[in-house]
Amino acid sequence: MKSFITIAFACGGCLLHGAGSLSISDFGGKPDGSDTTLALKKALAACKAQGATKLTFPQGNYNFFPDYADERYCFISNNDEGLKKIAFNLQGFNNLEIDGGNSLFMFHGKMNPVIVRDSEKISLKNFAFDFKRSFHSEATIVGNPEEGLDIKIDPKVFPYRINNNILVFTDGKKSKERKTTTKSKKLIFPYGGSLEFDPVKKEPAYLARDLWVGPAAVVKRMKDGVVRIMDPKLTGKVGNRIIFGPSHREHPGIVIDRSKDTVIENVTVHHAGGMALIAQLSHNVKIHKMQTMAREGSGRLLSATADATHFVNCTGKIEIGHCNFEVQKDDPSNLHGLYARIMKKEGDKTFVIAMIHPQQYGIDFVDPDDELEFVNSKSLVTYGTGKVAQVERINKQYTRVTMQEALPKDFAIGDAIAEIRDYPEIHIHHCRMHGNRARGLLLNCRGKTVIEDNHFHVPGTAILFESDARFWYEQGGVRDCTIRRNVFENGNFGPLQWGTGVIEVRAGIDEEFKSTSRYNKNITIEDNTFILFDRTAIVRTFSVEGLTIRNNKVQYSQEYPRRGLNDKLFDIQFSDQVVIENNDIPELPDFLKEEPKK
Amino acid sequence: MKSFITIAFACGGCLLHGAGSLSISDFGGKPDGSDTTLALKKALAACKAQGATKLTFPQGNYNFFPDYADERYCFISNNDEGLKKIAFNLQGFNNLEIDGGNSLFMFHGKMNPVIVRDSEKISLKNFAFDFKRSFHSEATIVGNPEEGLDIKIDPKVFPYRINNNILVFTDGKKSKERKTTTKSKKLIFPYGGSLEFDPVKKEPAYLARDLWVGPAAVVKRMKDGVVRIMDPKLTGKVGNRIIFGPSHREHPGIVIDRSKDTVIENVTVHHAGGMALIAQLSHNVKIHKMQTMAREGSGRLLSATADATHFVNCTGKIEIGHCNFEVQKDDPSNLHGLYARIMKKEGDKTFVIAMIHPQQYGIDFVDPDDELEFVNSKSLVTYGTGKVAQVERINKQYTRVTMQEALPKDFAIGDAIAEIRDYPEIHIHHCRMHGNRARGLLLNCRGKTVIEDNHFHVPGTAILFESDARFWYEQGGVRDCTIRRNVFENGNFGPLQWGTGVIEVRAGIDEEFKSTSRYNKNITIEDNTFILFDRTAIVRTFSVEGLTIRNNKVQYSQEYPRRGLNDKLFDIQFSDQVVIENNDIPELPDFLKEEPKK
Repeated sequence: MKSFITIAFACGGCLLHGAGSLSISDFGGKPDGSDTTLALKKALAACKAQGATKLTFPQGNYNFFPDYADERYCFISNNDEGLKKIAFNLQGFNNLEIDGGNSLFMFHGKMNPVIVRDSEKISLKNFAFDFKRSFHSEATIVGNPEEGLDIKIDPKVFPYRINNNILVFTDGKKSKERKTTTKSKKLIFPYGGSLEFDPVKKEPAYLARDLWVGPAAVVKRMKDGVVRIMDPKLTGKVGNRIIFGPSHREHPGIVIDRSKDTVIENVTVHHAGGMALIAQLSHNVKIHKMQTMAREGSGRLLSATADATHFVNCTGKIEIGHCNFEVQKDDPSNLHGLYARIMKKEGDKTFVIAMIHPQQYGIDFVDPDDELEFVNSKSLVTYGTGKVAQVERINKQYTRVTMQEALPKDFAIGDAIAEIRDYPEIHIHHCRMHGNRARGLLLNCRGKTVIEDNHFHVPGTAILFESDARFWYEQGGVRDCTIRRNVFENGNFGPLQWGTGVIEVRAGIDEEFKSTSRYNKNITIEDNTFILFDRTAIVRTFSVEGLTIRNNKVQYSQEYPRRGLNDKLFDIQFSDQVVIENNDIPELPDFLKEEPKK
Repeated sequence: MKSFITIAFACGGCLLHGAGSLSISDFGGKPDGSDTTLALKKALAACKAQGATKLTFPQGNYNFFPDYADERYCFISNNDEGLKKIAFNLQGFNNLEIDGGNSLFMFHGKMNPVIVRDSEKISLKNFAFDFKRSFHSEATIVGNPEEGLDIKIDPKVFPYRINNNILVFTDGKKSKERKTTTKSKKLIFPYGGSLEFDPVKKEPAYLARDLWVGPAAVVKRMKDGVVRIMDPKLTGKVGNRIIFGPSHREHPGIVIDRSKDTVIENVTVHHAGGMALIAQLSHNVKIHKMQTMAREGSGRLLSATADATHFVNCTGKIEIGHCNFEVQKDDPSNLHGLYARIMKKEGDKTFVIAMIHPQQYGIDFVDPDDELEFVNSKSLVTYGTGKVAQVERINKQYTRVTMQEALPKDFAIGDAIAEIRDYPEIHIHHCRMHGNRARGLLLNCRGKTVIEDNHFHVPGTAILFESDARFWYEQGGVRDCTIRRNVFENGNFGPLQWGTGVIEVRAGIDEEFKSTSRYNKNITIEDNTFILFDRTAIVRTFSVEGLTIRNNKVQYSQEYPRRGLNDKLFDIQFSDQVVIENNDIPELPDFLKEEPKK
């Protein structure tokens, strides 16, 4: 068995920064191209040992390589589990601010920039980070032949090779490409879905939808560096960019796990191999002036390869203010709980649950003394609650739960449970959300939720109330949600599956239960401006109790061609206590008066 | 955080089997098609709790599914690391015999049959195991067009689909094949290298070599169920079988890790997604009447997808007797130590090492008080030794080591270290090794090694002394090795890269050091029968001190066409104390007298 050495430091320079503040330069960290990973490890160990409350970086460009990085197996909700190499490994810290001094942190290879776990009062400030080689790849569309799509890939930015007619993205380092029966390094960057982007508008191309090209696109090498993807279903506009999304989300940018009072301030995520930020099972997260944005000069259009932010089973308060989320490959935010499926009953009080969505495996949210709700998976109606006595983790998917009292009488295999918790208060304000894939905000928390003074320009629904207990297993159902003073500018320019209304309920409630279920409650939509280029519904809901839509303004534009819809502005079904008043709705302009072309 | 329940059992029937013996049937395990995994877990927990020394299975076919299986992240040398679902999870047991009663254990999906770890006196007896869906796939060659190879795949045995011209092997369950941007199950069976086999002879086809077809073969669907692999380099004889080896070795059959006194007796491995058996860092392993062999009626030719057995940094005694290893996709056995590369010096006594072969990551073989040797990576000469004071694991690849004394004066970055240990005594006898890929036995242990009364028929070198400190990083160098009374029948029918001699030294010693290095010592080869179909070297060595070749018999056959070699029977270079005497060597028969056709 191993014996581990306690690391001790002789650090004469530390005093210069005050007892509570250390600098990376005292540990050998230099913005000179060298690997900062070991210096950071030493600095963090010293912060912990000395109880320092601040770690600073003199302004510069720092590099981080995975070789000497800490390692831990991580389950990260809505991203991919795995044994991660971690640069900023903030495990078990209390009261530490990391101030990057407006530096750029450049990560190399396959590693995770920041994981905060079991920590309290962590602030991450004043830095940007990027990856030398992105987890996704991009190409410019140069032709549209019938048999597929002609593209050009800049090999300096997105190294690739063609192996026996298959397109393979690499890190460009030839020396490691040796292949034997059992010995090879993971140097490839596998891809899954592709999506066409408009590089001038910096957004998904009009009506462009996900097209699966992974894990292996068959290609033909043409002259002049052109690569032809031999897939007739692929099309795209010459000059647009096709983005090959990574097959997995293994390297999200900032992970906050089972932590309390985390602050992210003035942090720019130029790239991440997964979500830019994901917080799970954590209490109080404040995000101020965060950005997702490709680095100028990087040759890339896309920023993070999944959501800008995502919150799972969090509590306390979540504030996202003055942020700019652009051109990441999924929603700006999704805030939700988790449902687990009831798999079998083992006694009066004991049953087995399973996480069904593989990216929720290992997120052990059920603890003794937790209060659970039992939920009909078809109606999302809660039919019982109870307190947990004991929990036995079987493996990352299955858990045995014993309640303190008997199970509810309607208990049924196939239904779901979720945690009744201190649902977080949510405040998202003064954010700009532009040009990402899919939707805007997915609001699925039962705490007071206020969305105000934001600017949305996204290809799908800008604000979505989703949740279901049969596919994504995301617990939601707002109780008090205010959406005010936002501008929704020419959204819904993507494919219909990303949403047909600006604000929508799409909870996973079976048709037969929509008339009785009231999953979302008390939604107020006021003082917003909706700029529409089509006959788009601004509010489309069902199964809502308490819906007020007032003092909103609608404007029409010709920014995009019509999508072919012919919807009413308000499409409200199976809802009670609905007030729609004092909205400023102009006459349909001439260009929308005609019936749409299908 | 979780609280774990201690499992208690009311088991009235246990007494029937005596205090020390439990039966799976008392825990609900039935050979009726149901999942035995949970019953096995309960039974093993009861064995531990009650100190039972035996667990029996009434004869029958038992099924094991991964859903409720135990899970642990495992580093398994020469196989692939990962979070494993484990059926027979024998962690921390002492004195337990598992008697399968000649049952068949059928595993479903992606799981690991047996992992013995940190245990003592474990016996596994009297069972065979198989997988419902194999990790490799097979196809029959039906045509040899210029543009590739025409094959037919039995979809009942090896379900597959063709996705956008790419051949994908699946588990055949359609319901799980839904693909979304972020949610999909691992139900595919990725492949890497292919190899042609002769289904009548049950062995690799004459001269067939590994051809890389993974991760994605481009195919065309032809009429009558024929699939054309569009790769001109693929060829094969109509009627032969092409075997698609799995891309990884994630699910070896039996793993013995850091354990003592393990016995495997009368166990048949019909299939494994990796090696059939691998032991690492373990003391005393006895293998008696083990088999690797495809199950009759399974529709498969291949047994395990890698080595039959493999031993890494083991100690004590390793005995392999009366075994039958056939048609697995790598060597019958390889017994070696590990070298780690010296990466940097951090002080008079402290340095950092790294495992270089990715399948050796996480095998932490350096512990405090271990004795290490420092080895020149080009000559494999040991230039210093010393005792370890402290070890700090940085991550799965890198470890910081501090010695008790100063480092040797020749210490150099790029050289290697290995553990000087109680090298195991090795006895391999009365085994039949037939029709596997590559070589026979790789002998790389410094304990007394006796190989006797075996029958070899393998396509490469039957007995190989390999080892190197620059590619595979396998420590070897025999000190006392006797090879006697074996029959080497018509081996070396594969490609030249699997070896040109029957018994060979191929240690990784640079040309300039071969004349001085004496890496292998005291090899005696006596009373063996060599049956040759070519002018093949029966012994080819270099850098050996002490080599006796006596009383052997050579016979010639016409079983295969000549490979085009023209070698002497004994090709001994840079060796001392060489005795070659009293060997019974007939005249070259007429069919070998001609110069070979190139």
